[in-house]
Amino acid sequence: MASNSFGRFFRITTFGESHGPGLGVVIDGCPAGLTIDMDALRYEMARRRPGQSKVTTPRSEDDDVRIWSGTVDGVTTGHPIMMLIENQGQKSHHYDKLKTVYRPGHADFTWEKKYGLRDVRGGGRSSARETAARVAAGSIARQLLAREGVSIVGHVTQIGTIVAEKFDADEIERNIVRCADADAAARMVEAIDAKRKEGDSLGGIVEVIAEGVPVGWGDPIYEKLDARLAYALMSVNAVKGVEIGAGFASASSTGSANNDPIGPDGFLSNNAGGILGGVSNGMPVVARAAIKPTSSINKTQQTIDADGNPAELEVGGRHDPCVVPRGVPVCEAMVALVLVDCLLAPPAKI
Amino acid sequence: MASNSFGRFFRITTFGESHGPGLGVVIDGCPAGLTIDMDALRYEMARRRPGQSKVTTPRSEDDDVRIWSGTVDGVTTGHPIMMLIENQGQKSHHYDKLKTVYRPGHADFTWEKKYGLRDVRGGGRSSARETAARVAAGSIARQLLAREGVSIVGHVTQIGTIVAEKFDADEIERNIVRCADADAAARMVEAIDAKRKEGDSLGGIVEVIAEGVPVGWGDPIYEKLDARLAYALMSVNAVKGVEIGAGFASASSTGSANNDPIGPDGFLSNNAGGILGGVSNGMPVVARAAIKPTSSINKTQQTIDADGNPAELEVGGRHDPCVVPRGVPVCEAMVALVLVDCLLAPPAKI
Amino acid sequence: MASNSFGRFFRITTFGESHGPGLGVVIDGCPAGLTIDMDALRYEMARRRPGQSKVTTPRSEDDDVRIWSGTVDGVTTGHPIMMLIENQGQKSHHYDKLKTVYRPGHADFTWEKKYGLRDVRGGGRSSARETAARVAAGSIARQLLAREGVSIVGHVTQIGTIVAEKFDADEIERNIVRCADADAAARMVEAIDAKRKEGDSLGGIVEVIAEGVPVGWGDPIYEKLDARLAYALMSVNAVKGVEIGAGFASASSTGSANNDPIGPDGFLSNNAGGILGGVSNGMPVVARAAIKPTSSINKTQQTIDADGNPAELEVGGRHDPCVVPRGVPVCEAMVALVLVDCLLAPPAKI
Amino acid sequence: MASNSFGRFFRITTFGESHGPGLGVVIDGCPAGLTIDMDALRYEMARRRPGQSKVTTPRSEDDDVRIWSGTVDGVTTGHPIMMLIENQGQKSHHYDKLKTVYRPGHADFTWEKKYGLRDVRGGGRSSARETAARVAAGSIARQLLAREGVSIVGHVTQIGTIVAEKFDADEIERNIVRCADADAAARMVEAIDAKRKEGDSLGGIVEVIAEGVPVGWGDPIYEKLDARLAYALMSVNAVKGVEIGAGFASASSTGSANNDPIGPDGFLSNNAGGILGGVSNGMPVVARAAIKPTSSINKTQQTIDADGNPAELEVGGRHDPCVVPRGVPVCEAMVALVLVDCLLAPPAKI
Repeated sequence: MASNSFGRFFRITTFGESHGPGLGVVIDGCPAGLTIDMDALRYEMARRRPGQSKVTTPRSEDDDVRIWSGTVDGVTTGHPIMMLIENQGQKSHHYDKLKTVYRPGHADFTWEKKYGLRDVRGGGRSSARETAARVAAGSIARQLLAREGVSIVGHVTQIGTIVAEKFDADEIERNIVRCADADAAARMVEAIDAKRKEGDSLGGIVEVIAEGVPVGWGDPIYEKLDARLAYALMSVNAVKGVEIGAGFASASSTGSANNDPIGPDGFLSNNAGGILGGVSNGMPVVARAAIKPTSSINKTQQTIDADGNPAELEVGGRHDPCVVPRGVPVCEAMVALVLVDCLLAPPAKI
Repeated sequence: MASNSFGRFFRITTFGESHGPGLGVVIDGCPAGLTIDMDALRYEMARRRPGQSKVTTPRSEDDDVRIWSGTVDGVTTGHPIMMLIENQGQKSHHYDKLKTVYRPGHADFTWEKKYGLRDVRGGGRSSARETAARVAAGSIARQLLAREGVSIVGHVTQIGTIVAEKFDADEIERNIVRCADADAAARMVEAIDAKRKEGDSLGGIVEVIAEGVPVGWGDPIYEKLDARLAYALMSVNAVKGVEIGAGFASASSTGSANNDPIGPDGFLSNNAGGILGGVSNGMPVVARAAIKPTSSINKTQQTIDADGNPAELEVGGRHDPCVVPRGVPVCEAMVALVLVDCLLAPPAKI
Repeated sequence: MASNSFGRFFRITTFGESHGPGLGVVIDGCPAGLTIDMDALRYEMARRRPGQSKVTTPRSEDDDVRIWSGTVDGVTTGHPIMMLIENQGQKSHHYDKLKTVYRPGHADFTWEKKYGLRDVRGGGRSSARETAARVAAGSIARQLLAREGVSIVGHVTQIGTIVAEKFDADEIERNIVRCADADAAARMVEAIDAKRKEGDSLGGIVEVIAEGVPVGWGDPIYEKLDARLAYALMSVNAVKGVEIGAGFASASSTGSANNDPIGPDGFLSNNAGGILGGVSNGMPVVARAAIKPTSSINKTQQTIDADGNPAELEVGGRHDPCVVPRGVPVCEAMVALVLVDCLLAPPAKI
Repeated sequence: MASNSFGRFFRITTFGESHGPGLGVVIDGCPAGLTIDMDALRYEMARRRPGQSKVTTPRSEDDDVRIWSGTVDGVTTGHPIMMLIENQGQKSHHYDKLKTVYRPGHADFTWEKKYGLRDVRGGGRSSARETAARVAAGSIARQLLAREGVSIVGHVTQIGTIVAEKFDADEIERNIVRCADADAAARMVEAIDAKRKEGDSLGGIVEVIAEGVPVGWGDPIYEKLDARLAYALMSVNAVKGVEIGAGFASASSTGSANNDPIGPDGFLSNNAGGILGGVSNGMPVVARAAIKPTSSINKTQQTIDADGNPAELEVGGRHDPCVVPRGVPVCEAMVALVLVDCLLAPPAKI
């Protein structure tokens, strides 16, 4: 089924596998007249790139993005923008043993049953490498949003059992876990390192904050801004939960405590995460994604082979002991893609 | 923007307001040949109905559903099924004072800014009454799913700070909070009652379990089953968070603990909530929705009027002190709508 | 398959059968703030109505449209507008004999094979009565377009072998065949009358002209304005061909004759029918639809019954000897629905 | 606006310009398990290729298609198939003079007004070169259809005023105009040659016949098979009219002559072009597209420049004096894309 597109007005279609010739994205619906800032785009790509620090996989990928269409002299023409990232240096032989067994926590089993075959090289299209295409497209979305005063910042609020307790935006890109709390960041790095040495992995939580979103974005009943954000973030590999504003904590609250009072200058609190009735209310839009621990671990796991016989597996290879810090730019990109669609939406009133 | 449809193959379009002449749904894509079980449909409607118990609003609505098209002698013809629920007995004068002030926690402010006007009678289309149309459509979806052996059960796992600790499916419909733990249920009822007397309200968590889902439902990359569920559930009024399987708890877990081992007879645990790589794995599909406390409370709240001046508001009227029990059939309906779309999806392989 | 919606931004979903309780349409995406002109809407409905003249079916249908949602005090709210037309006075017993045989030229055979059953009463959903819903929705589209200076006029250019040779817009609604050439109109009426007496029927051509369309409507590559018009018009019952501007005549022309020269004040001819590269060029948009002769005739026809045995059929009942004049408002409505989607489209440039 | 995709289940998204680095297509929704026949694909590409005969442009383009994703060992995986055609040897300097004037009959004027800028090199994305991507995707669609016994043949029925009078399928690819009537073909070649020498161009008509289409393809009311075909064919550059079966001729016919009688072994004639009520009836599906004469001619034409001042233009360059023969594989591809979507559609009945 056609299921590789996201967005209605700024519509992306991604393609490509981890170890094939390349992967990329077609953006359809980007307005004409935008001078694409390639430095900004490369910066976002670098934030997602493997091998950027000791808490990520030591695999190194260049992720050079080339624009094949939709621009003249660097300016968008209104026509589809195809961006292609050629793969290079992938070592497919690492995956030979995976041909016959299903990795727990991976798409191996389900995709093979669904499609009757699967691309074992690096997980094929189920690889997190697909998110490179999202980040590339998201960067252009962010550039359109920035023109309207909308900025998007993501950070890590939790890794394993360590929870950030402060928010200093300047701190985020200063540490390799992208945590806005320097102390927590240091402990997060240690915790990841410890798990890495055990051959194990950790999960965590990414929070994305969009500031400058005007009142009125999002569309009832089924295209609510929060529903779209949940959809967007849950589509990211390894995300298992999404919440808006107070989120799950609101379940144990009361109406009198959870309702955000309204004053002449705006809302006096933001339990709603910037969204009421599915429509933005002018406060920062706040979404959080729970990311499960990396499935690929260097511990022996119980599984089966393609014939259904019991098998033991140690995945091996070079994997992220914690993918959460690299998840930050991906989650930001998905939020940007949701918001740019609101920016381009048809008028709600005459 | 056209935003009142949900689903691709079994596509619903809902319409109507709380206090207008009526509300309803058009189902487009229901296959021909299904004899609609109207008793089953009415049963689901009754579960969502206001006035069903002392923990819900004392407003009474009949919610009689009439089918206007798409059937001959009770059998679906493959053409659009329009179901209409006429409104009756709504008392619009209760809402006069709301014309001039915005209720905290409601869509009043955002929708009025977005559309330039709003239907103040009962919240208009932002009313939870819209979910009646979802339940009606969801019932037909469930009937199609049941033919394939898929069953859907929802229950309340938390209200306020009270958390269910047991799961006895038979218990769910025996208590008015729809909790599978009888002891917790009794305490939940008490807690709601206490808050009702204070003029306050409580939130909670609904869990929906789909059993019998075959391996292979859901479509990478952007139409993942979990992403679709998150989208569906987050579109329900008052839902502020969605998680699949271990959900947010997986953020503080490790790969070795969170990965579900695979044995010859299937998965040995279900942290994945039945979904890997966005595709069902044959285990029960498990999703949870966090529902915020009812916004309409009988306590004085700080707000503003349409001119931006400070105002105080006590909503009054007859509202649910806790909408979570009535949210169960709504969340079930949304899960059914997601799953029936998977049932009807084009073939993934030749 | 979900296939009863049309349009992306001003999206209609129609439902209902000829002889069921009623039929109607949900409009999703109409902007808030439009005061619906119900007189204008009823005027369009009357133009489509059966029984309006001796060249149409003598069946009389009231086609009263009631708005069930999406307005407050007659003003659109931005939420779905459901319009319902109750059926009354249909005589289903006329259709008893059709239960067992397939009418040539009708959807009987194909729909029964596709769906496994069919609604024989009045053709069910295949009835041209479905177009009443299009006209109702189209009227609101026209009201939005009129605000932008876009007007839509349809007329009959051919019935049988009689071709209009003059264009006097004032003449169109003065004669019962809606022909802009009074002399041709008189001969068309005679021709229809002659065929009616024979129990036979005639086809013809409807031309729709949209004036005031600004430069820039329509979207390459697959949402070209001409492609959308072709899709819209070909979806109307009995339409078997669509052409834009010079249309089929351009096939026998030359580039030097067919290209429209451009002068400082605009195009000097309009072979392009107002569309170049799929985008409007500021000239009148001109589309024509070829309508086949009414399939229901009072002549004996060769067919088969549901068992595949040969059968003879004389349809009987009260049918239009020529549906072309009543097709005018329907074709206008479809053009309006295409154009309003262009009006509401996202911006093409920043 | 996102407008570069076609199809719902076998969904293509095309990108790229005539003189940029390349162009291509992403196919989303092709089922897994198809071994792509690259020879068949190249054969179709060669039929569309410029420079294939003296009646086409002497420009030579290789149109080598490379598959970048979605296959393993030549077998489709169910994931997006990206096919890229690199551009080479385009001479952009030919287009310098077009920077300042609008070519009559081209998209120059409308696209520049719509987008605020345009890619003048070879017409950018408005170039017929985009159809190479359609043909590549269409070839894979045809391969899926062939497995179900559906075959698609296109031929030229008219060029200028010369009309084919015989149909010998074997003849079509024997002559350079793809006409099934050898005598007419010879005269067509002469006529094109004559116009080429004058610096002028000719139009014509392409007919596409799909055999083996089972009863039941196409979906009422707005996704009728004929409506989809009209949409698909009208989206092809230079097409100004589409008709199904008897098409425009049915306008001057009568019901008794136009209705196709039904016998025990099927329909006894095919005025319906294989479609009744928007659904295929088992007869060959027959569609025709009217193609206007090539707009680029070597005659002086009256136009304006970007400042609105009168200008004279002789396009120059190497253009097809008649694009109709090369339009055959393009029209076939579009019909294939429509039909493969029917093949993959969800079930109409349970």
